[in-house]
Amino acid sequence: MQHFLTTKDYSKTQLQAFIDSAVRLKNGNFYEKPLAGKSVALVFFNPSLRTRASMQIAIYELGGNPVILETGSTSWSLEYRENIVMDGNKTEHIKEFVRVLSRYVSAIGVRCFATLENWEIEKTDPVLNAIAGYAEVPVFNLESAMHHPFQAMADMMTLKERFGEKRPKVLLTWAFHPKPLPMAVPNSFALAASQMGFDLRIAHPGGYQLDKQLMDEIQAFAKENNSTFEFTDDPDAAFDDIDAVYAKSWGSNLYYGNYEEEARLRKPLKDKWIVNESKMARGNDPVFMHCLPVRRNVVVTDSVIDSPNSIVIDEAENRLHIQKAILAEILK
Amino acid sequence: MQHFLTTKDYSKTQLQAFIDSAVRLKNGNFYEKPLAGKSVALVFFNPSLRTRASMQIAIYELGGNPVILETGSTSWSLEYRENIVMDGNKTEHIKEFVRVLSRYVSAIGVRCFATLENWEIEKTDPVLNAIAGYAEVPVFNLESAMHHPFQAMADMMTLKERFGEKRPKVLLTWAFHPKPLPMAVPNSFALAASQMGFDLRIAHPGGYQLDKQLMDEIQAFAKENNSTFEFTDDPDAAFDDIDAVYAKSWGSNLYYGNYEEEARLRKPLKDKWIVNESKMARGNDPVFMHCLPVRRNVVVTDSVIDSPNSIVIDEAENRLHIQKAILAEILK
Amino acid sequence: MQHFLTTKDYSKTQLQAFIDSAVRLKNGNFYEKPLAGKSVALVFFNPSLRTRASMQIAIYELGGNPVILETGSTSWSLEYRENIVMDGNKTEHIKEFVRVLSRYVSAIGVRCFATLENWEIEKTDPVLNAIAGYAEVPVFNLESAMHHPFQAMADMMTLKERFGEKRPKVLLTWAFHPKPLPMAVPNSFALAASQMGFDLRIAHPGGYQLDKQLMDEIQAFAKENNSTFEFTDDPDAAFDDIDAVYAKSWGSNLYYGNYEEEARLRKPLKDKWIVNESKMARGNDPVFMHCLPVRRNVVVTDSVIDSPNSIVIDEAENRLHIQKAILAEILK
Repeated sequence: MQHFLTTKDYSKTQLQAFIDSAVRLKNGNFYEKPLAGKSVALVFFNPSLRTRASMQIAIYELGGNPVILETGSTSWSLEYRENIVMDGNKTEHIKEFVRVLSRYVSAIGVRCFATLENWEIEKTDPVLNAIAGYAEVPVFNLESAMHHPFQAMADMMTLKERFGEKRPKVLLTWAFHPKPLPMAVPNSFALAASQMGFDLRIAHPGGYQLDKQLMDEIQAFAKENNSTFEFTDDPDAAFDDIDAVYAKSWGSNLYYGNYEEEARLRKPLKDKWIVNESKMARGNDPVFMHCLPVRRNVVVTDSVIDSPNSIVIDEAENRLHIQKAILAEILK
Repeated sequence: MQHFLTTKDYSKTQLQAFIDSAVRLKNGNFYEKPLAGKSVALVFFNPSLRTRASMQIAIYELGGNPVILETGSTSWSLEYRENIVMDGNKTEHIKEFVRVLSRYVSAIGVRCFATLENWEIEKTDPVLNAIAGYAEVPVFNLESAMHHPFQAMADMMTLKERFGEKRPKVLLTWAFHPKPLPMAVPNSFALAASQMGFDLRIAHPGGYQLDKQLMDEIQAFAKENNSTFEFTDDPDAAFDDIDAVYAKSWGSNLYYGNYEEEARLRKPLKDKWIVNESKMARGNDPVFMHCLPVRRNVVVTDSVIDSPNSIVIDEAENRLHIQKAILAEILK
Repeated sequence: MQHFLTTKDYSKTQLQAFIDSAVRLKNGNFYEKPLAGKSVALVFFNPSLRTRASMQIAIYELGGNPVILETGSTSWSLEYRENIVMDGNKTEHIKEFVRVLSRYVSAIGVRCFATLENWEIEKTDPVLNAIAGYAEVPVFNLESAMHHPFQAMADMMTLKERFGEKRPKVLLTWAFHPKPLPMAVPNSFALAASQMGFDLRIAHPGGYQLDKQLMDEIQAFAKENNSTFEFTDDPDAAFDDIDAVYAKSWGSNLYYGNYEEEARLRKPLKDKWIVNESKMARGNDPVFMHCLPVRRNVVVTDSVIDSPNSIVIDEAENRLHIQKAILAEILK
């Protein structure tokens, strides 16, 4: 039984095979219904539009029955800790919830965002890992505190579509946003890019470094693939010689759960950390990427996101195809 | 590519063809699955029970896969204005939302009620029109600020079932309700009735006139069809010689967004503007119609809505059939 | 037309036939799609994860189309009383809601919990019975104020799996819980166990008696089946000679709607009314049962629910099979 929690659990060869399969699906060369008669649970601890739509359709197009469960208003009412007296506000233990679901469905997808409250706990992805640990069927990650692997794989597929066998030089740049956001998307993008052997530069202001352990793992993948991996805190020079720009905002783990302190660090960055035409002009006619939703004229200017170099809609479309490819594989 | 936003965009011949097709579907003479393998998004900015159920079933019975998306708690978090710095509470632009959905689905249904805040903006149906403008697939209206065309078409089908080739004399009468309501239903009913060539009388108290531009359009359709179009503010004489009574409450656009002023205008109308047996007796044994949900003994008495002349359940049933007919046509 | 509102409406022979059919379904000996082309409404006045998932999948596996409707945020906005002026906060009468749904779907499932406000009203199951009264298609109960018959039937099936033709001695024991809970589960379990002819003991502290009329009906079934039916308020001796322990908390109908008074009665019961290993040791190597969700180390200790004698996950799985069996029968 294979889960799909992070790309880290898969080899470069396997990731490449997923992309090849997704390209075939996108071209329509796939007529089987590998999920015929099977139900798949999609458990949302958090709201979702794009992931919800694309996963439902992916499962439907593979012949299966998507079953959406929203913990919604009772969000986080599932207890994940062991040996606990449940006399508080948690009404069910993940142990029962997951074991029961395992009797009903062939796989379980889970979205459980970071709550941005306690970094030491959240960096271990406790909810996702508890679910995967108890499940008797494959579990796949629809975005957890630390990872968003389907998004990263859709991004890798979109880069492959654009660059083919060429090894692109990719910039992951922090961007300003009115609120601190989770780190799952930048984590997974950087990880997958290094696993694929792309040259990777990460740009962020002081105080916004990503998880040290993850950066060490990425360094190891870069070494293995003979690719480069570098950092900068210069929001302009970051774009020099770049083939692909991936913009994303995230919070500071120095002030995790401390919104006011973080706001003080963030506020002066507003005008400097936006992707605009003059920065893009420093690159190698780069494509512009973002996972969406995106705040126009805050993260990126209209002129960049509306330009022919913007491939954000392709990334979103590829979510559907890569999800079909990966589900077909782990559920076969 | 054809949208279905208002009946105004279709000729009388086309509207009649939708009704004929819906009657065939109701009689079971339709075995094709024109939506087989296709997904259709149903985007709800507002709650819904009847529309949600009937559209899901319509799509299922046509062979397709309904995908429900609720902006729900994050209602109106989609920005529709151009050239805007998105540093407020809107997290995604409709431009991205709709272009992404267009890659996933074969059509997009949208419910976006009036917010009853700014009449000059809302009368232009800005959200619906922004969605239709960016979409690369057909968009259909599940009730916008100004129109509810599926409801109107179900109403027209129900009138055709009752009156056949006879041209009924139809009364649209304002009714009391504890709160101001949107005008989409009366707008679309009056518009469709005039397009179909029915004789139309609209009764409402002072201050509750419908949109001037729409009334002019209705007048033009009446002229084209040689049918009558008249107004009255007499809640009793309004019923004289009438074949069909359509009751509906709506708010005053004089006090749009000003609930307290509107309440002062509305309050004294309570006892006068209810459909009851004595009013119905002035008509030509008229049928009683309402789009539902309806407040019993406020909008209409139990004795009228429970009488054999009440066709409100038929109207609701016909939503299913007319929606199938129209979707099959615009998605063929 | 047959509803499925409570097991009381079915004979022992019929209940046994449902279980036999469910066992065949569980073993995979069932290839028909009795709901092909049919839509079934699932109306939730209250949240649900397990019932929602298992019913959706049951309907899908029978070939049908589940249509979920949540009155949700507008919970209880349906009026059920006759002859009422609807000028309050209820926006639609159940009469219209149900008659319209009857035109769209082949059956209607309803979840409408007790609101724990007025015992004299709620013991009559007014919402469920109003829906069943107006419906023109079969209605089935997904848990009402007084009954949860699918849960009880899944429990009976699980007991049959364990004990075969043996007549088990079953204990239904009250358990501590931080809040007063509805009585639908204990009511339906006790009722079904007596209908099946099992020996039944009910243990609860003073003030927590179940409905008098229901207990009289159970007494009559016990007499008819020559089985025993007894009560105790001793939380330990209750376990003597028992084959199966069913734990469940419920509120006191003496203090119905009076949470503070009830809390005073409940608080001192905390340490005494938990299912633990020493109590279980008094029984006849009994199985442990619970409908889930369960609060670990409040209702039952980890050591009991994690032991091989715990059959709580089997009960939950059997929900799927028994629901398929019963739906296939009442919708045939």
